[in-house]
Amino acid sequence: MSDLCGQPATQLRRAIATGDVSPVELLESCIARIEELNPTVNAIVATCFERARSEASAAERAVRSGENIPPLHGLPVAIKDLVATEGMPTTYGSPLYADNVPNRDAGLVKRLRDAGAIVVGKTNTPEFGAGTNTSNRVYGATRNPHALERTCGGSSGGAAAALACDMVPLAHGSDTGGSLRNPATWCGVVGFRPTPGLVPHEARNVNYSHFAVQGPMARTVPDIALMLMGLAGNDPNDPLSGPVSTSAFENLADADLSNLRVATSEDLGLAPVDDEIRDVFRARIGSVSGAFAACEQRNPELAGAREIFWALRSVTFLANHGERYREHGQNLAPNVVANVEAALAMTPQDMAEAEHGWARLYRAFQDFFKDIDLLIVPGNATSAFRVEDGIPKVVGGRKMENYMDASILRSALTLTGHPIVALPMGIDALGMPFGVQIVGPRRGDAFLLSAAAALEKYIATLPDLVPPRLNLEDLKS
Amino acid sequence: MSDLCGQPATQLRRAIATGDVSPVELLESCIARIEELNPTVNAIVATCFERARSEASAAERAVRSGENIPPLHGLPVAIKDLVATEGMPTTYGSPLYADNVPNRDAGLVKRLRDAGAIVVGKTNTPEFGAGTNTSNRVYGATRNPHALERTCGGSSGGAAAALACDMVPLAHGSDTGGSLRNPATWCGVVGFRPTPGLVPHEARNVNYSHFAVQGPMARTVPDIALMLMGLAGNDPNDPLSGPVSTSAFENLADADLSNLRVATSEDLGLAPVDDEIRDVFRARIGSVSGAFAACEQRNPELAGAREIFWALRSVTFLANHGERYREHGQNLAPNVVANVEAALAMTPQDMAEAEHGWARLYRAFQDFFKDIDLLIVPGNATSAFRVEDGIPKVVGGRKMENYMDASILRSALTLTGHPIVALPMGIDALGMPFGVQIVGPRRGDAFLLSAAAALEKYIATLPDLVPPRLNLEDLKS
Repeated sequence: MSDLCGQPATQLRRAIATGDVSPVELLESCIARIEELNPTVNAIVATCFERARSEASAAERAVRSGENIPPLHGLPVAIKDLVATEGMPTTYGSPLYADNVPNRDAGLVKRLRDAGAIVVGKTNTPEFGAGTNTSNRVYGATRNPHALERTCGGSSGGAAAALACDMVPLAHGSDTGGSLRNPATWCGVVGFRPTPGLVPHEARNVNYSHFAVQGPMARTVPDIALMLMGLAGNDPNDPLSGPVSTSAFENLADADLSNLRVATSEDLGLAPVDDEIRDVFRARIGSVSGAFAACEQRNPELAGAREIFWALRSVTFLANHGERYREHGQNLAPNVVANVEAALAMTPQDMAEAEHGWARLYRAFQDFFKDIDLLIVPGNATSAFRVEDGIPKVVGGRKMENYMDASILRSALTLTGHPIVALPMGIDALGMPFGVQIVGPRRGDAFLLSAAAALEKYIATLPDLVPPRLNLEDLKS
Repeated sequence: MSDLCGQPATQLRRAIATGDVSPVELLESCIARIEELNPTVNAIVATCFERARSEASAAERAVRSGENIPPLHGLPVAIKDLVATEGMPTTYGSPLYADNVPNRDAGLVKRLRDAGAIVVGKTNTPEFGAGTNTSNRVYGATRNPHALERTCGGSSGGAAAALACDMVPLAHGSDTGGSLRNPATWCGVVGFRPTPGLVPHEARNVNYSHFAVQGPMARTVPDIALMLMGLAGNDPNDPLSGPVSTSAFENLADADLSNLRVATSEDLGLAPVDDEIRDVFRARIGSVSGAFAACEQRNPELAGAREIFWALRSVTFLANHGERYREHGQNLAPNVVANVEAALAMTPQDMAEAEHGWARLYRAFQDFFKDIDLLIVPGNATSAFRVEDGIPKVVGGRKMENYMDASILRSALTLTGHPIVALPMGIDALGMPFGVQIVGPRRGDAFLLSAAAALEKYIATLPDLVPPRLNLEDLKS
């Protein structure tokens, strides 16, 4: 079997352009890997191999005939099952949509196809994306390929697990309270939450929101930048989007780490974080801090973020699910029901105070960034928990009131609207993948990716930070 | 007395650069006009003549010494009294702030000063901007210079009246439900509601909103574009703002009207509009329609706009005034109290449905614009009413439930986020200024201004559309 499926997308794309790799050969390598490991991991829940084979053949012919080829030409991608794909099942993880087959692609799927990507399948997610344990009543649970009894995280859990298994070189995900970051961290891959609007999404039911931000996942930072060439755009149907230039992503230059001023924070001053995670984080920061111009511990002012996030999320949940809740209350997952019912119990004053608090918090974060270039924070508050445990009950010694309480380390950063890379950084106390969130300046997506690419290379030189390797034999069913 | 105060800002700015007009001479001309007419009209409610004189002298020296001068160098401007000005009274029209003197400028005031503008005074507004009749308990009513017994409109009423009287060549205003458009229309000047975010405003209490959009008012469209050179920007403290290029505003080329596809609508399919206004609108469109490539009557799909606007506005009102209402309920204007109380009576479901409805309406409007370049709509639903009448009780035969009901013709367009020019177009049945709203494509601010500039020139050639002239003698006290 070819090992093409495990190579970085940027390398594959160059080899496709020169004719050294055929899109057909690459696709077959990915399909073989999916057929080999997916029965165990359950990352990819629907496939379209025949259509993909036909597209790969066409992509191969285009290269041979010397046509100009677009940035993602011939690269297999997977789409999270929260986003519509033409002619393919799109269930949102809900039994109510178990038989749903859209007749058109979501805008971002169309953009990926227009950029030359080849969709091979859909990736698993909790029902309507509400959860950090990727499991639902349509497709069951996705397992962490680094330890099958543990969760891959969520809600872009299928995407992260598929990438970790080399099933695809690039995968799409989305992020409200951290769904591009949490599974990337626990599966040892790279996730990127872009500035809201950079990747337009016309399917939001709320015009302006930092929720349901769409973005790329991959195994390297340059691959993330490459995938953005297809995902980014300006869509009149998304009011957050605007004119965008993708040239900065096409020629991503590594930043010079020794020019960067970095703040680090174990818990953002407010999030529950397990002691074991704090210890690993301190050790990792100790390993890399010397590379920066400055690196000091500093917490941003994010007081109230938990309550603000919850109230804003409630409005969005009601806009998305209020009608469905009235019609199908009993047929919705408990997380969805709990969110809707919490929303219905709010007062107009709660919501207005959340809006006002959000505006204050946003501006305080701009002040915080005045004299730093990056903020680095742990990617997760705990190690990956067991699939059967559902959600963490206690984090950092604090009892969790709901599943979002374990995510404050990520959801508070959602409110800032800053771009964030989830970058692997060795292993945690359990030997599972450990990673960090790297927050960049406002609208500094390309700058952040340049910095993260440089840090990724630097980490690769540190013997203590070797990433965990999968034992593929264990994963074969 | 010099007549410099009545010349267009673009012409003045060119003459300042060549040394043909001195900023000092221009300022004195404006001050003389203010002293002459303001006692009658009450448009400008606070002045800073000594500081302005000192700045004008410095501006004159800068020209003489051959320094590079910024785009608004030496041009007098007035600031609406809802926006903070360093060392000058900023009352928001509220007795609670009658003695408020901020110690720093709002961002947009700083940008105007950085661009060379000279602030000469503050313009009147209803309390906290809530109203279309510019009158408050701090400064009283502003009168329409075309008929002193009638309102100048609002809430940027002082700005519009000051421009109509040639007190300043440029004035700042702001617009939630039409406050840059309604007073411009009734006073016979030009108002411009930009794309939200083009003119950043860090003082909003809600991160994302189409309300409290800041913008320029002037007597000509090219003057509007010139003022945008100072107002537009990218401020980290406003999440709606982003990278902006002002070069398109610097060299505004007239569009070719014969290339433009225009839709016209008397009432957007839902707004109450007086028959007299419909008649004048039809006559005006008849006069100009031949200039366009196509011009046909078509209503956008804006169903629900009234309720959506009201619910979204309620959240903003609570965020802005909820605390103040609890502390000072009895000391707030009836419009403010009514808005807060309506908000407190809402349910989370009302608010979520408004958010969802807004997203649908936004996307429907993008569809509407797919095959047109401009939408033209009347600027006001009625003629300017008498100051003492407060608000219109009946419009187009329909009883008004609150003061916003007469504004649906403008507030529905607020929800779209499209840029809108309010352009004078002759007189109405009362002989008062009549005007239209011209809605441009999404984010097409420069395109819209180019089209409006061309239309403004075209109108000037039509004998029936001569604008009303002020009788200055009548206005002297």
